[in-house]
Amino acid sequence: MEKLEKLYEGKAKQLFATDDPEVLWVEYKNSATAGDGEKKEDFEGKGRLNNLITTLIFSLLKARGIDSHLVKRVDDTAQLVRKMTMFPLEIVLRNTAAGHFCSRLGVEEGLEFKEPVLEYFLKNDDLHDPFVNDDDLVVLDVCTREDLAEIAPLARRINEALIDIFSKIDVKLVDFKIEMGRTSDGTLLLADEITPDSCRLWDQRDKSGKVEHLDKDLFRRDLGDIIPAYEEIERRLAALAEAEGVCVE
Amino acid sequence: MEKLEKLYEGKAKQLFATDDPEVLWVEYKNSATAGDGEKKEDFEGKGRLNNLITTLIFSLLKARGIDSHLVKRVDDTAQLVRKMTMFPLEIVLRNTAAGHFCSRLGVEEGLEFKEPVLEYFLKNDDLHDPFVNDDDLVVLDVCTREDLAEIAPLARRINEALIDIFSKIDVKLVDFKIEMGRTSDGTLLLADEITPDSCRLWDQRDKSGKVEHLDKDLFRRDLGDIIPAYEEIERRLAALAEAEGVCVE
Ligand SMILES: Nc1ncnc2c1ncn2[C@@H]1O[C@H](COP(=O)(O)OP(=O)(O)O)[C@@H](O)[C@H]1O
Ligand SMILES: Nc1ncnc2c1ncn2[C@@H]1O[C@H](COP(=O)(O)OP(=O)(O)O)[C@@H](O)[C@H]1O
Ligand SMILES: [Mg+2]
Ligand SMILES: [Mg+2]
Repeated sequence: MEKLEKLYEGKAKQLFATDDPEVLWVEYKNSATAGDGEKKEDFEGKGRLNNLITTLIFSLLKARGIDSHLVKRVDDTAQLVRKMTMFPLEIVLRNTAAGHFCSRLGVEEGLEFKEPVLEYFLKNDDLHDPFVNDDDLVVLDVCTREDLAEIAPLARRINEALIDIFSKIDVKLVDFKIEMGRTSDGTLLLADEITPDSCRLWDQRDKSGKVEHLDKDLFRRDLGDIIPAYEEIERRLAALAEAEGVCVE
Repeated sequence: MEKLEKLYEGKAKQLFATDDPEVLWVEYKNSATAGDGEKKEDFEGKGRLNNLITTLIFSLLKARGIDSHLVKRVDDTAQLVRKMTMFPLEIVLRNTAAGHFCSRLGVEEGLEFKEPVLEYFLKNDDLHDPFVNDDDLVVLDVCTREDLAEIAPLARRINEALIDIFSKIDVKLVDFKIEMGRTSDGTLLLADEITPDSCRLWDQRDKSGKVEHLDKDLFRRDLGDIIPAYEEIERRLAALAEAEGVCVE
Protein backbone atom coordinates (compact mmCIF):
# COMPACT_ATOMS: atom_id res chain seq x y z
CA MET A 1 0.00 0.00 0.00
CA GLU A 2 1.37 3.39 -1.01
CA LYS A 3 1.13 6.48 1.21
CA LEU A 4 -0.02 9.42 -0.91
CA GLU A 5 -1.01 13.05 -0.19
CA LYS A 6 -1.98 14.32 3.24
CA LEU A 7 -5.72 14.81 3.55
CA TYR A 8 -6.08 16.16 7.09
CA GLU A 9 -3.98 17.00 10.08
CA GLY A 10 -5.74 16.91 13.44
CA LYS A 11 -4.57 17.36 16.98
CA ALA A 12 -3.35 13.76 17.38
CA LYS A 13 -3.16 12.21 13.92
CA GLN A 14 -2.52 12.84 10.26
CA LEU A 15 -4.61 11.22 7.54
CA PHE A 16 -3.12 10.35 4.16
CA ALA A 17 -4.66 8.99 1.00
CA THR A 18 -3.43 5.64 -0.34
CA ASP A 19 -3.62 4.01 -3.74
CA ASP A 20 -6.82 2.32 -2.56
CA PRO A 21 -9.61 4.94 -2.52
CA GLU A 22 -11.33 3.01 0.28
CA VAL A 23 -8.27 3.02 2.56
CA LEU A 24 -6.56 5.79 4.55
CA TRP A 25 -3.10 5.88 6.12
CA VAL A 26 -3.21 7.21 9.70
CA GLU A 27 -0.05 8.57 11.32
CA TYR A 28 -0.16 8.93 15.09
CA LYS A 29 1.59 12.08 16.30
CA ASN A 30 3.48 12.67 19.53
CA SER A 31 1.47 15.75 20.48
CA ALA A 32 -0.95 15.88 23.35
CA THR A 33 -3.57 18.62 23.77
CA ALA A 34 -5.95 19.42 26.60
CA GLY A 35 -8.31 22.12 27.83
CA ASP A 36 -10.02 22.87 24.52
CA GLY A 37 -6.60 23.00 22.79
CA GLU A 38 -5.16 25.55 25.26
CA LYS A 39 -2.51 23.14 26.56
CA LYS A 40 -0.20 21.42 24.09
CA GLU A 41 3.00 19.38 24.42
CA ASP A 42 4.97 16.73 22.55
CA PHE A 43 5.85 13.40 24.15
CA GLU A 44 8.49 11.25 22.49
CA GLY A 45 7.03 7.79 21.88
CA LYS A 46 3.38 8.71 22.38
CA GLY A 47 2.47 8.31 18.70
CA ARG A 48 3.92 4.81 18.64
CA LEU A 49 2.19 3.80 21.87
CA ASN A 50 -1.22 5.09 20.78
CA ASN A 51 -0.84 3.33 17.44
CA LEU A 52 -0.04 0.05 19.23
CA ILE A 53 -2.81 0.52 21.80
CA THR A 54 -5.54 1.37 19.27
CA THR A 55 -4.53 -1.63 17.20
CA LEU A 56 -4.66 -3.91 20.26
CA ILE A 57 -8.03 -2.58 21.39
CA PHE A 58 -9.65 -2.78 17.97
CA SER A 59 -8.33 -6.34 17.65
CA LEU A 60 -9.64 -7.31 21.09
CA LEU A 61 -13.01 -5.76 20.18
CA LYS A 62 -13.08 -7.66 16.91
CA ALA A 63 -12.60 -10.91 18.84
CA ARG A 64 -15.71 -9.85 20.78
CA GLY A 65 -17.74 -9.38 17.62
CA ILE A 66 -17.32 -5.61 17.26
CA ASP A 67 -15.82 -4.49 14.00
CA SER A 68 -13.93 -1.22 13.45
CA HIS A 69 -12.32 0.77 10.64
CA LEU A 70 -8.93 -0.88 11.33
CA VAL A 71 -7.38 -2.69 8.39
CA LYS A 72 -3.91 -3.24 9.84
CA ARG A 73 -0.95 -1.59 11.49
CA VAL A 74 1.80 -0.82 8.94
CA ASP A 75 4.64 0.43 11.10
CA ASP A 76 5.43 1.84 14.54
CA THR A 77 3.35 4.98 14.18
CA ALA A 78 0.94 4.22 11.34
CA GLN A 79 -2.05 2.08 10.54
CA LEU A 80 -4.35 1.57 7.57
CA VAL A 81 -8.05 2.15 8.11
CA ARG A 82 -11.19 2.04 6.03
CA LYS A 83 -12.14 5.46 4.74
CA MET A 84 -15.33 6.59 6.36
CA THR A 85 -17.81 9.43 6.22
CA MET A 86 -17.53 10.46 9.84
CA PHE A 87 -20.30 11.73 12.06
CA PRO A 88 -18.94 14.97 13.57
CA LEU A 89 -19.64 13.60 17.03
CA GLU A 90 -17.75 12.81 20.19
CA ILE A 91 -19.66 9.86 21.55
CA VAL A 92 -18.95 9.70 25.28
CA LEU A 93 -19.71 6.74 27.54
CA ARG A 94 -19.36 7.11 31.30
CA ASN A 95 -19.38 4.38 33.93
CA THR A 96 -18.05 6.51 36.79
CA ALA A 97 -18.34 10.27 37.31
CA ALA A 98 -15.23 12.22 36.27
CA GLY A 99 -14.08 15.30 34.41
CA HIS A 100 -16.72 17.47 32.74
CA PHE A 101 -19.57 15.42 34.13
CA CYS A 102 -18.48 16.44 37.63
CA SER A 103 -17.88 20.13 36.90
CA ARG A 104 -21.11 20.45 34.89
CA LEU A 105 -23.32 18.65 37.37
CA GLY A 106 -21.65 19.18 40.74
CA VAL A 107 -20.94 15.51 41.35
CA GLU A 108 -17.95 14.08 43.21
CA GLU A 109 -15.36 12.35 40.99
CA GLY A 110 -15.54 8.59 41.42
CA LEU A 111 -19.31 8.22 41.90
CA GLU A 112 -20.26 4.86 40.34
CA PHE A 113 -23.25 5.18 38.03
CA LYS A 114 -26.06 2.66 38.37
CA GLU A 115 -26.08 2.45 34.57
CA PRO A 116 -23.75 3.75 31.84
CA VAL A 117 -24.28 7.33 30.67
CA LEU A 118 -24.18 8.09 26.96
CA GLU A 119 -23.56 11.69 25.93
CA TYR A 120 -22.99 13.35 22.56
CA PHE A 121 -20.79 16.36 21.92
CA LEU A 122 -20.74 18.06 18.56
CA LYS A 123 -17.21 18.12 17.09
CA ASN A 124 -16.93 21.85 16.44
CA ASP A 125 -13.88 23.77 17.66
CA ASP A 126 -15.51 27.19 17.17
CA LEU A 127 -18.41 26.18 19.41
CA HIS A 128 -16.08 24.35 21.84
CA ASP A 129 -17.64 20.94 21.19
CA PRO A 130 -21.06 21.65 22.73
CA PHE A 131 -23.05 19.01 24.55
CA VAL A 132 -26.14 18.08 22.49
CA ASN A 133 -29.11 15.76 22.78
CA ASP A 134 -30.81 13.59 20.15
CA ASP A 135 -33.34 16.24 19.12
CA ASP A 136 -30.57 18.83 18.66
CA LEU A 137 -28.63 16.45 16.40
CA VAL A 138 -31.68 15.69 14.29
CA VAL A 139 -32.72 19.31 13.67
CA LEU A 140 -29.10 20.29 13.00
CA ASP A 141 -28.98 17.52 10.35
CA VAL A 142 -25.92 15.98 12.01
CA CYS A 143 -27.65 12.62 11.93
CA THR A 144 -31.09 11.14 11.58
CA ARG A 145 -33.25 9.44 14.17
CA GLU A 146 -32.36 6.17 12.37
CA ASP A 147 -28.61 6.88 12.67
CA LEU A 148 -29.04 7.46 16.41
CA ALA A 149 -31.00 4.24 16.76
CA GLU A 150 -27.90 2.46 15.42
CA ILE A 151 -25.20 4.60 17.05
CA ALA A 152 -26.48 4.42 20.63
CA PRO A 153 -26.77 0.62 20.92
CA LEU A 154 -23.39 0.16 19.21
CA ALA A 155 -21.81 2.64 21.63
CA ARG A 156 -23.30 0.76 24.58
CA ARG A 157 -22.09 -2.59 23.23
CA ILE A 158 -18.59 -1.15 22.79
CA ASN A 159 -18.71 0.05 26.40
CA GLU A 160 -19.65 -3.43 27.64
CA ALA A 161 -16.84 -5.00 25.64
CA LEU A 162 -14.28 -2.43 26.77
CA ILE A 163 -15.30 -2.83 30.42
CA ASP A 164 -14.61 -6.53 29.99
CA ILE A 165 -11.27 -5.94 28.28
CA PHE A 166 -10.01 -3.42 30.82
CA SER A 167 -11.25 -5.36 33.83
CA LYS A 168 -9.13 -8.29 32.62
CA ILE A 169 -6.02 -6.09 32.86
CA ASP A 170 -7.02 -4.66 36.26
CA VAL A 171 -8.04 -1.28 34.95
CA LYS A 172 -11.29 0.50 35.70
CA LEU A 173 -12.82 2.03 32.58
CA VAL A 174 -14.17 5.30 33.99
CA ASP A 175 -15.22 6.90 30.69
CA PHE A 176 -14.17 7.19 27.07
CA LYS A 177 -14.86 9.01 23.83
CA ILE A 178 -15.32 7.29 20.48
CA GLU A 179 -16.18 8.37 16.96
CA MET A 180 -18.18 6.53 14.33
CA GLY A 181 -18.73 6.82 10.62
CA ARG A 182 -20.16 4.98 7.65
CA THR A 183 -18.24 3.17 4.96
CA SER A 184 -19.07 3.84 1.30
CA ASP A 185 -21.58 0.97 1.44
CA GLY A 186 -23.35 2.55 4.43
CA THR A 187 -22.07 0.26 7.18
CA LEU A 188 -21.83 1.96 10.58
CA LEU A 189 -18.40 1.35 12.12
CA LEU A 190 -16.35 2.35 15.11
CA ALA A 191 -13.52 4.55 13.77
CA ASP A 192 -10.86 7.02 14.94
CA GLU A 193 -8.94 5.76 18.00
CA ILE A 194 -9.32 4.22 21.43
CA THR A 195 -6.25 5.16 23.47
CA PRO A 196 -5.33 6.57 26.90
CA ASP A 197 -5.85 9.96 25.20
CA SER A 198 -9.54 9.19 24.76
CA CYS A 199 -10.27 7.10 27.88
CA ARG A 200 -10.08 7.56 31.63
CA LEU A 201 -8.32 4.46 32.96
CA TRP A 202 -7.82 3.95 36.68
CA ASP A 203 -5.31 1.34 37.78
CA GLN A 204 -6.71 -1.30 40.12
CA ARG A 205 -3.33 -2.97 40.79
CA ASP A 206 -2.17 -0.03 42.85
CA LYS A 207 -3.54 -0.78 46.29
CA SER A 208 -2.61 2.53 47.89
CA GLY A 209 -6.26 3.60 47.79
CA LYS A 210 -5.62 6.73 45.74
CA VAL A 211 -6.47 6.86 42.05
CA GLU A 212 -3.60 5.89 39.80
CA HIS A 213 -4.33 7.45 36.42
CA LEU A 214 -3.16 5.55 33.35
CA ASP A 215 -4.44 8.13 30.88
CA LYS A 216 -4.24 11.69 29.60
CA ASP A 217 -5.43 13.10 32.95
CA LEU A 218 -1.75 12.79 33.95
CA PHE A 219 -1.08 15.52 31.39
CA ARG A 220 -4.35 17.48 31.80
CA ARG A 221 -3.86 17.75 35.55
CA ASP A 222 -0.02 17.75 35.69
CA LEU A 223 0.01 14.56 37.71
CA GLY A 224 3.05 12.95 36.12
CA ASP A 225 4.63 11.58 32.97
CA ILE A 226 2.20 9.98 30.55
CA ILE A 227 4.68 7.73 28.75
CA PRO A 228 5.21 5.10 31.51
CA ALA A 229 1.43 4.93 31.98
CA TYR A 230 0.77 4.46 28.26
CA GLU A 231 3.56 1.83 28.16
CA GLU A 232 1.89 0.00 31.03
CA ILE A 233 -1.46 -0.04 29.20
CA GLU A 234 0.22 -1.25 26.03
CA ARG A 235 2.06 -4.03 27.91
CA ARG A 236 -1.04 -5.28 29.70
CA LEU A 237 -3.18 -5.20 26.55
CA ALA A 238 -0.51 -7.06 24.56
CA ALA A 239 -0.37 -9.75 27.28
CA LEU A 240 -4.17 -10.04 27.21
CA ALA A 241 -4.26 -10.37 23.42
CA GLU A 242 -1.55 -13.02 23.68
CA ALA A 243 -3.43 -14.87 26.43
CA GLU A 244 -6.67 -14.75 24.44
CA GLY A 245 -4.92 -15.83 21.26
CA VAL A 246 -6.32 -12.75 19.52
CA CYS A 247 -4.92 -11.95 16.10
CA VAL A 248 -3.54 -8.41 16.41
CA GLU A 249 -3.79 -6.61 13.04
CA MET B 1 -59.79 29.03 51.19
CA GLU B 2 -57.44 30.58 53.75
CA LYS B 3 -53.94 31.85 52.89
CA LEU B 4 -51.51 30.62 55.55
CA GLU B 5 -47.71 30.75 55.98
CA LYS B 6 -45.29 31.44 53.15
CA LEU B 7 -43.56 28.24 52.01
CA TYR B 8 -41.22 29.52 49.29
CA GLU B 9 -40.30 32.73 47.54
CA GLY B 10 -38.90 32.36 44.03
CA LYS B 11 -37.90 34.85 41.39
CA ALA B 12 -41.42 35.33 40.03
CA LYS B 13 -43.86 33.92 42.57
CA GLN B 14 -44.50 33.25 46.23
CA LEU B 15 -46.05 30.00 47.45
CA PHE B 16 -48.27 29.91 50.53
CA ALA B 17 -49.89 27.05 52.38
CA THR B 18 -53.68 26.98 52.67
CA ASP B 19 -56.07 25.21 55.01
CA ASP B 20 -56.23 22.41 52.43
CA PRO B 21 -52.96 20.42 52.59
CA GLU B 22 -53.34 19.53 48.91
CA VAL B 23 -53.70 23.14 47.76
CA LEU B 24 -51.18 26.01 47.52
CA TRP B 25 -51.77 29.73 47.13
CA VAL B 26 -49.54 31.25 44.43
CA GLU B 27 -48.88 34.99 44.40
CA TYR B 28 -47.45 36.37 41.17
CA LYS B 29 -44.83 39.07 41.77
CA ASN B 30 -44.01 42.11 39.66
CA SER B 31 -40.32 41.29 39.40
CA ALA B 32 -38.60 40.20 36.22
CA THR B 33 -35.18 38.55 36.14
CA ALA B 34 -32.90 37.61 33.27
CA GLY B 35 -29.36 36.49 32.50
CA ASP B 36 -29.05 33.87 35.24
CA GLY B 37 -30.50 36.35 37.78
CA GLU B 38 -27.97 39.11 36.94
CA LYS B 39 -30.66 41.49 35.63
CA LYS B 40 -33.65 42.30 37.84
CA GLU B 41 -36.41 44.88 37.69
CA ASP B 42 -39.97 45.43 38.91
CA PHE B 43 -42.81 46.13 36.51
CA GLU B 44 -46.07 47.46 37.92
CA GLY B 45 -48.90 45.20 36.76
CA LYS B 46 -46.76 42.28 35.64
CA GLY B 47 -47.86 39.97 38.49
CA ARG B 48 -51.50 40.56 37.64
CA LEU B 49 -50.97 39.99 33.92
CA ASN B 50 -49.01 36.76 34.41
CA ASN B 51 -51.66 35.49 36.81
CA LEU B 52 -54.37 36.21 34.24
CA ILE B 53 -52.35 34.76 31.35
CA THR B 54 -51.40 31.51 33.14
CA THR B 55 -55.02 31.05 34.13
CA LEU B 56 -56.20 31.61 30.55
CA ILE B 57 -53.58 29.25 29.08
CA PHE B 58 -54.18 26.46 31.59
CA SER B 59 -57.93 26.81 30.91
CA LEU B 60 -57.44 26.71 27.13
CA LEU B 61 -55.21 23.64 27.57
CA LYS B 62 -57.82 21.97 29.75
CA ALA B 63 -60.38 22.46 26.97
CA ARG B 64 -57.88 20.59 24.76
CA GLY B 65 -57.67 17.67 27.17
CA ILE B 66 -54.50 18.70 29.01
CA ASP B 67 -54.88 19.06 32.74
CA SER B 68 -52.67 21.22 34.97
CA HIS B 69 -52.16 22.05 38.65
CA LEU B 70 -54.55 25.03 38.38
CA VAL B 71 -57.51 24.96 40.74
CA LYS B 72 -58.73 28.52 40.23
CA ARG B 73 -57.73 32.16 40.22
CA VAL B 74 -58.63 33.83 43.53
CA ASP B 75 -57.81 37.48 42.89
CA ASP B 76 -55.84 39.77 40.59
CA THR B 77 -52.41 38.41 41.49
CA ALA B 78 -53.12 35.00 43.04
CA GLN B 79 -54.33 31.56 42.11
CA LEU B 80 -54.88 28.27 43.90
CA VAL B 81 -53.00 25.25 42.60
CA ARG B 82 -52.67 21.61 43.52
CA LYS B 83 -49.63 20.98 45.69
CA MET B 84 -47.11 18.93 43.74
CA THR B 85 -43.81 17.22 44.24
CA MET B 86 -41.95 19.03 41.50
CA PHE B 87 -39.29 17.61 39.22
CA PRO B 88 -36.37 20.08 39.47
CA LEU B 89 -36.43 20.45 35.70
CA GLU B 90 -36.86 23.18 33.15
CA ILE B 91 -38.54 21.34 30.29
CA VAL B 92 -37.88 23.35 27.14
CA LEU B 93 -39.68 22.91 23.82
CA ARG B 94 -38.42 24.70 20.75
CA ASN B 95 -40.15 25.10 17.40
CA THR B 96 -37.85 27.81 16.03
CA ALA B 97 -34.20 28.51 16.88
CA ALA B 98 -33.71 31.34 19.41
CA GLY B 99 -31.80 32.31 22.52
CA HIS B 100 -29.48 29.75 24.06
CA PHE B 101 -30.02 27.25 21.27
CA CYS B 102 -28.47 29.76 18.86
CA SER B 103 -25.54 30.78 21.03
CA ARG B 104 -24.78 27.18 22.03
CA LEU B 105 -25.00 25.74 18.55
CA GLY B 106 -24.11 28.61 16.23
CA VAL B 107 -27.50 28.72 14.53
CA GLU B 108 -29.22 31.84 13.19
CA GLU B 109 -32.24 33.01 15.24
CA GLY B 110 -35.47 32.24 13.39
CA LEU B 111 -34.47 28.93 11.79
CA GLU B 112 -37.63 26.80 11.64
CA PHE B 113 -37.03 23.29 12.97
CA LYS B 114 -38.31 20.36 10.95
CA GLU B 115 -39.57 18.88 14.21
CA PRO B 116 -39.89 20.24 17.77
CA VAL B 117 -36.80 20.05 19.98
CA LEU B 118 -37.19 18.92 23.59
CA GLU B 119 -34.41 19.83 26.02
CA TYR B 120 -34.03 19.43 29.78
CA PHE B 121 -32.19 21.80 32.07
CA LEU B 122 -31.60 20.95 35.69
CA LYS B 123 -33.09 23.60 38.00
CA ASN B 124 -29.98 24.39 40.05
CA ASP B 125 -28.89 27.99 40.52
CA ASP B 126 -25.41 27.03 41.79
CA LEU B 127 -24.77 25.03 38.62
CA HIS B 128 -26.49 27.67 36.44
CA ASP B 129 -29.26 25.30 35.30
CA PRO B 130 -27.09 22.94 33.26
CA PHE B 131 -28.34 21.27 30.09
CA VAL B 132 -28.76 17.52 30.70
CA ASN B 133 -29.84 14.46 28.76
CA ASP B 134 -32.00 11.51 29.79
CA ASP B 135 -29.08 9.37 30.99
CA ASP B 136 -27.75 12.23 33.13
CA LEU B 137 -31.15 12.66 34.79
CA VAL B 138 -31.45 8.96 35.52
CA VAL B 139 -28.02 8.53 37.13
CA LEU B 140 -28.47 11.76 39.09
CA ASP B 141 -31.76 10.30 40.45
CA VAL B 142 -33.66 13.38 39.25
CA CYS B 143 -36.17 11.10 37.59
CA THR B 144 -36.53 7.57 36.39
CA ARG B 145 -36.64 6.22 32.86
CA GLU B 146 -40.39 5.69 33.48
CA ASP B 147 -40.86 9.33 34.54
CA LEU B 148 -39.15 10.45 31.31
CA ALA B 149 -41.35 8.15 29.27
CA GLU B 150 -44.33 10.09 30.67
CA ILE B 151 -42.79 13.57 30.78
CA ALA B 152 -41.53 13.71 27.18
CA PRO B 153 -44.82 12.78 25.43
CA LEU B 154 -46.78 15.10 27.72
CA ALA B 155 -44.37 17.95 26.95
CA ARG B 156 -44.77 17.33 23.22
CA ARG B 157 -48.58 17.24 23.50
CA ILE B 158 -48.52 20.53 25.41
CA ASN B 159 -46.38 22.00 22.63
CA GLU B 160 -48.89 20.91 19.97
CA ALA B 161 -51.78 22.38 21.95
CA LEU B 162 -49.94 25.65 22.62
CA ILE B 163 -48.96 26.00 18.97
CA ASP B 164 -52.65 25.70 18.16
CA ILE B 165 -53.68 28.21 20.84
CA PHE B 166 -51.09 30.81 19.87
CA SER B 167 -51.62 30.41 16.13
CA LYS B 168 -55.29 31.28 16.72
CA ILE B 169 -54.21 34.64 18.19
CA ASP B 170 -51.66 35.29 15.42
CA VAL B 171 -48.63 34.58 17.56
CA LYS B 172 -45.76 32.29 16.64
CA LEU B 173 -44.76 30.04 19.55
CA VAL B 174 -40.96 30.02 19.16
CA ASP B 175 -40.11 28.16 22.36
CA PHE B 176 -41.18 27.83 25.97
CA LYS B 177 -40.23 26.37 29.32
CA ILE B 178 -42.55 24.35 31.51
CA GLU B 179 -42.29 22.48 34.80
CA MET B 180 -44.06 19.32 35.88
CA GLY B 181 -44.65 17.49 39.11
CA ARG B 182 -46.67 14.72 40.65
CA THR B 183 -49.70 15.07 42.92
CA SER B 184 -49.82 13.08 46.15
CA ASP B 185 -51.60 10.28 44.27
CA GLY B 186 -48.76 10.12 41.70
CA THR B 187 -50.46 11.84 38.78
CA LEU B 188 -48.05 13.67 36.48
CA LEU B 189 -49.28 17.22 35.85
CA LEU B 190 -48.18 20.39 34.14
CA ALA B 191 -47.48 22.90 36.95
CA ASP B 192 -45.78 26.25 37.59
CA GLU B 193 -46.68 28.87 34.94
CA ILE B 194 -47.00 29.50 31.23
CA THR B 195 -46.57 33.23 30.65
CA PRO B 196 -44.64 35.62 28.39
CA ASP B 197 -41.87 35.22 31.01
CA SER B 198 -41.51 31.57 30.06
CA CYS B 199 -42.30 31.64 26.31
CA ARG B 200 -40.90 33.32 23.23
CA LEU B 201 -43.90 34.75 21.38
CA TRP B 202 -43.48 36.51 18.05
CA ASP B 203 -46.35 38.65 16.81
CA GLN B 204 -47.62 37.73 13.37
CA ARG B 205 -50.02 40.68 13.10
CA ASP B 206 -47.16 43.13 12.72
CA LYS B 207 -46.47 43.07 9.00
CA SER B 208 -43.31 45.17 9.09
CA GLY B 209 -41.20 42.07 8.53
CA LYS B 210 -39.14 42.49 11.69
CA VAL B 211 -39.80 40.35 14.75
CA GLU B 212 -42.22 41.90 17.19
CA HIS B 213 -41.52 40.29 20.56
CA LEU B 214 -44.47 39.81 22.89
CA ASP B 215 -42.41 38.25 25.69
CA LYS B 216 -39.60 38.69 28.21
CA ASP B 217 -37.01 39.14 25.43
CA LEU B 218 -38.19 42.80 25.46
CA PHE B 219 -36.65 43.01 28.94
CA ARG B 220 -33.71 40.60 28.38
CA ARG B 221 -32.59 42.52 25.31
CA ASP B 222 -33.77 46.03 26.27
CA LEU B 223 -36.12 46.16 23.30
CA GLY B 224 -38.98 47.98 24.95
CA ASP B 225 -41.63 47.96 27.68
CA ILE B 226 -42.95 44.51 28.54
CA ILE B 227 -46.29 45.62 29.99
CA PRO B 228 -48.06 46.58 26.73
CA ALA B 229 -46.87 43.30 25.18
CA TYR B 230 -48.12 41.22 28.11
CA GLU B 231 -51.42 43.17 28.00
CA GLU B 232 -51.75 42.37 24.31
CA ILE B 233 -51.23 38.63 24.97
CA GLU B 234 -53.76 38.72 27.80
CA ARG B 235 -56.32 40.51 25.63
CA ARG B 236 -55.96 38.12 22.70
CA LEU B 237 -56.10 35.02 24.91
CA ALA B 238 -59.18 36.32 26.72
CA ALA B 239 -60.88 36.91 23.36
CA LEU B 240 -59.96 33.38 22.24
CA ALA B 241 -61.29 31.81 25.45
CA GLU B 242 -64.49 33.82 24.99
CA ALA B 243 -64.79 32.76 21.34
CA GLU B 244 -64.18 29.11 22.23
CA GLY B 245 -66.61 29.28 25.14
CA VAL B 246 -63.87 28.00 27.43
CA CYS B 247 -64.55 28.17 31.15
CA VAL B 248 -61.69 30.24 32.58
CA GLU B 249 -60.94 29.13 36.13
N1 LIG C 1 -11.75 5.91 9.17
C1 LIG C 1 -11.77 7.24 9.08
N2 LIG C 1 -12.11 7.86 7.92
C2 LIG C 1 -12.13 9.21 7.83
N3 LIG C 1 -11.82 10.03 8.83
C3 LIG C 1 -11.49 9.48 10.02
C4 LIG C 1 -11.45 8.07 10.21
N4 LIG C 1 -11.11 7.82 11.49
C5 LIG C 1 -10.95 9.03 12.08
N5 LIG C 1 -11.17 10.04 11.20
C6 LIG C 1 -11.07 11.49 11.45
O1 LIG C 1 -9.69 11.81 11.37
C7 LIG C 1 -9.37 12.82 12.32
C8 LIG C 1 -8.37 12.22 13.29
O2 LIG C 1 -7.41 13.10 13.63
P1 LIG C 1 -7.30 13.75 15.07
O3 LIG C 1 -5.91 14.25 15.15
O4 LIG C 1 -7.80 12.88 16.14
O5 LIG C 1 -8.32 14.95 14.78
P2 LIG C 1 -9.11 15.94 15.71
O6 LIG C 1 -8.14 16.94 16.20
O7 LIG C 1 -10.12 16.51 14.75
O8 LIG C 1 -9.74 15.08 16.78
C9 LIG C 1 -10.64 13.16 13.05
O9 LIG C 1 -11.25 14.29 12.46
C10 LIG C 1 -11.50 11.92 12.84
O10 LIG C 1 -12.89 12.22 12.86
N1 LIG D 1 -48.10 23.06 42.00
C1 LIG D 1 -46.91 23.28 42.57
N2 LIG D 1 -46.59 22.67 43.73
C2 LIG D 1 -45.37 22.89 44.31
N3 LIG D 1 -44.45 23.72 43.82
C3 LIG D 1 -44.73 24.35 42.65
C4 LIG D 1 -45.95 24.16 41.98
N4 LIG D 1 -45.94 24.91 40.84
C5 LIG D 1 -44.73 25.53 40.82
N5 LIG D 1 -44.00 25.20 41.89
C6 LIG D 1 -42.66 25.67 42.25
O1 LIG D 1 -42.81 26.95 42.84
C7 LIG D 1 -41.77 27.82 42.47
C8 LIG D 1 -42.35 28.95 41.67
O2 LIG D 1 -41.78 30.13 41.96
P1 LIG D 1 -40.81 30.91 40.96
O3 LIG D 1 -40.79 32.31 41.46
O4 LIG D 1 -41.16 30.67 39.54
O5 LIG D 1 -39.48 30.13 41.37
P2 LIG D 1 -38.06 29.96 40.68
O6 LIG D 1 -37.35 31.24 40.89
O7 LIG D 1 -37.49 28.80 41.46
O8 LIG D 1 -38.35 29.63 39.24
C9 LIG D 1 -40.83 27.00 41.59
O9 LIG D 1 -39.78 26.45 42.35
C10 LIG D 1 -41.73 25.89 41.07
O10 LIG D 1 -41.02 24.70 40.76
MG1 LIG E 1 -9.24 13.29 17.65
MG1 LIG F 1 -39.86 30.03 37.94
